[in-house]
Amino acid sequence: MLPFSYEEYQHRLEQTKKKMLEKGIEVLLITNPANMNYLSGYNGWSFYVDQLLVVIIDEEQPIWIGRHMDANGARATTWLFDDHIIPYPESYVHSDKHPMEFVANILHEIGQSNRRIGLEMESYYFSALAYEKLKQSLPNAVFMDASLLVNYVRLIKSDQEIEYIRRAAKIVEKGMDAAVQNIAAGIRECDVVGEIYKNLVSGTPEFGGDYPSIVPMLPSGENTSTPHLTWTDRQYKYGEMVIIELAGCHQRYHSPLARTVSIGQPSEEAYNVSQIVVEGLNTALEAVKPGVTCEEVELAWDNVIKKYGIEKESRLGYSMGLNYPPDWGEHTASIRRGDLTVLEPNMTFHMIPGLWFDDYGIEISESFRVTENGCEVLADYRRELIIKEDLDLTIIS
Amino acid sequence: MLPFSYEEYQHRLEQTKKKMLEKGIEVLLITNPANMNYLSGYNGWSFYVDQLLVVIIDEEQPIWIGRHMDANGARATTWLFDDHIIPYPESYVHSDKHPMEFVANILHEIGQSNRRIGLEMESYYFSALAYEKLKQSLPNAVFMDASLLVNYVRLIKSDQEIEYIRRAAKIVEKGMDAAVQNIAAGIRECDVVGEIYKNLVSGTPEFGGDYPSIVPMLPSGENTSTPHLTWTDRQYKYGEMVIIELAGCHQRYHSPLARTVSIGQPSEEAYNVSQIVVEGLNTALEAVKPGVTCEEVELAWDNVIKKYGIEKESRLGYSMGLNYPPDWGEHTASIRRGDLTVLEPNMTFHMIPGLWFDDYGIEISESFRVTENGCEVLADYRRELIIKEDLDLTIIS
Repeated sequence: MLPFSYEEYQHRLEQTKKKMLEKGIEVLLITNPANMNYLSGYNGWSFYVDQLLVVIIDEEQPIWIGRHMDANGARATTWLFDDHIIPYPESYVHSDKHPMEFVANILHEIGQSNRRIGLEMESYYFSALAYEKLKQSLPNAVFMDASLLVNYVRLIKSDQEIEYIRRAAKIVEKGMDAAVQNIAAGIRECDVVGEIYKNLVSGTPEFGGDYPSIVPMLPSGENTSTPHLTWTDRQYKYGEMVIIELAGCHQRYHSPLARTVSIGQPSEEAYNVSQIVVEGLNTALEAVKPGVTCEEVELAWDNVIKKYGIEKESRLGYSMGLNYPPDWGEHTASIRRGDLTVLEPNMTFHMIPGLWFDDYGIEISESFRVTENGCEVLADYRRELIIKEDLDLTIIS
Repeated sequence: MLPFSYEEYQHRLEQTKKKMLEKGIEVLLITNPANMNYLSGYNGWSFYVDQLLVVIIDEEQPIWIGRHMDANGARATTWLFDDHIIPYPESYVHSDKHPMEFVANILHEIGQSNRRIGLEMESYYFSALAYEKLKQSLPNAVFMDASLLVNYVRLIKSDQEIEYIRRAAKIVEKGMDAAVQNIAAGIRECDVVGEIYKNLVSGTPEFGGDYPSIVPMLPSGENTSTPHLTWTDRQYKYGEMVIIELAGCHQRYHSPLARTVSIGQPSEEAYNVSQIVVEGLNTALEAVKPGVTCEEVELAWDNVIKKYGIEKESRLGYSMGLNYPPDWGEHTASIRRGDLTVLEPNMTFHMIPGLWFDDYGIEISESFRVTENGCEVLADYRRELIIKEDLDLTIIS
């Protein structure tokens, strides 16, 4: 049932404990669902209530603490022994009693309440209130920020993880194809996304799709400068540009991809800009190899667009892989100025160069793996501005 | 463009300020995306970075503060004037500089840094770190917990909100139909969910679907006792029971619905249990009317199952409506023992009775609106255990 071998989970746990030791953390409370999954296998849509994994430096197995209703899910999806799965009663759910009071009692009972406790201060699913309750209930503990500790362990992927990311890449090709095939003047945005979702979730005959951590984004026309608005009932118009950003997902591993579609012939300017984006993307991909820093890869892109007199503020890409909503990024290495992370084999990134102007934008991206001597682009999809001459379709509709 | 009238947003803001006054809060920092949307209209998948709405008791308009890249989205989706939309630079994203330091500077500049500041301590998108940064950067402020302040304003819906929830109910009927039509022995779970998503997102010819805040849940067989595991590539087997829980969504308003499907004839015991669930559900729905408490509605259900010697621990339902991932529940009123919330017209709930046994479970739910003298069930879907005799399909597959 488990997506990885017992040995792989042990290795991850060892790496985590090594980092705990370096930082002087004796007990680590993990609330980031991707990190919980990474270390224990736990996988369920239950992160909307408080739940966590307790890693104790001198104990072999972590402890899962979560809602009573989800304990069976923990038994089904983790490698943990049953006595390491501790449910809190339903009376703690959205009530005056806080689950962290229960957690504090458990830590007290097992003699861990006066230790140096690491917290993921930046986890989406560790609220400010949970933090306060924990501090109040454990007055003798010393708390330390361990926000991205496990995220950094996740930075270099195993071969099995790469296999799942490659499957996600096959799935994202299908999703992108559904977008490209269906986008046309007169078609509603929601109908296009319906077809995309069907493909992303069904996956391929060999392996099914999982839910991506971010919904498909399809800003069009003037809205290409507002990248995070989601779809509406609006119909596409002839002459519009549409940016499509989505990810395939398998076993919670992602492979994101972005393309831009022009409904009808693009302006000469937009076409030229798309050529610059592709040139910059190609050049940056060529710069990828072990030993190079993230900053150097960004510089390769920047040198291309500078030639054309263009400047771009936001980052060029980010580390990605295993994740849960609301983000598939890992929040560790970024391909941007000032990031001195040195690339190593089996790191995986989404490189997403984009250029935005007053009334349109162009994004063309690739997800890639760092190899022994370069990079492996994960999805195989035409790397260009995609022009849809859908006059036939508009006549029918 | 806005889904509600300017007057409706003003009314919501007035209600919010009234509650702020009652609690002695002068400045309210809203990080819950549903609450941000409710008061300003803001709608985008940008809640994975820090962003907020600042409501100042003696200022007419709230202030939106968010990522530079999302400011255009705020201009496009809110009723706020442009000078009330304040972007922070990209250099604050996933870096050493924290967006809350920027927020603190703004509050300082506009003379709000030494006031009584309400925080949504339980919001998914207000991290423990954001809280710490804010406290450090505003040493002269007094902080107060305002976790569910706006959620409680949302409890009673306007007629326009009800209209959106009714549309979501039409969409959930389509989604449920896709599930019921496609579930059969030999079909993969992911292929069923693909069809569900297509229907939930496309919506109807009159109005499109939005992304639901929770993915469709379809636990089957023994996993019906693990309600929050998501779908896999596994094929359904003849003789299995499948619980389907999903929601239609329109303009971020939800209408959830659960049904149970038996692939082939159910056991007599399971069939009898389904009859009890429907009887309990009907009885509880009949108990709904203004003036009755949530607890009394739960008691009506409990009296039915008690007749059959059954006890159930978890709550029977919860208030729902406008929301974003990871939950469509509002975290305010619950239909459960001890909740003395008095029902009023235009409150909306998801009532989800379920009974679980060792190797199967039955859930049959309805979302409803409290009316002037009773309740309006939102979706129109056969309220029974659905039996699929799909022998033909298994022969084909």
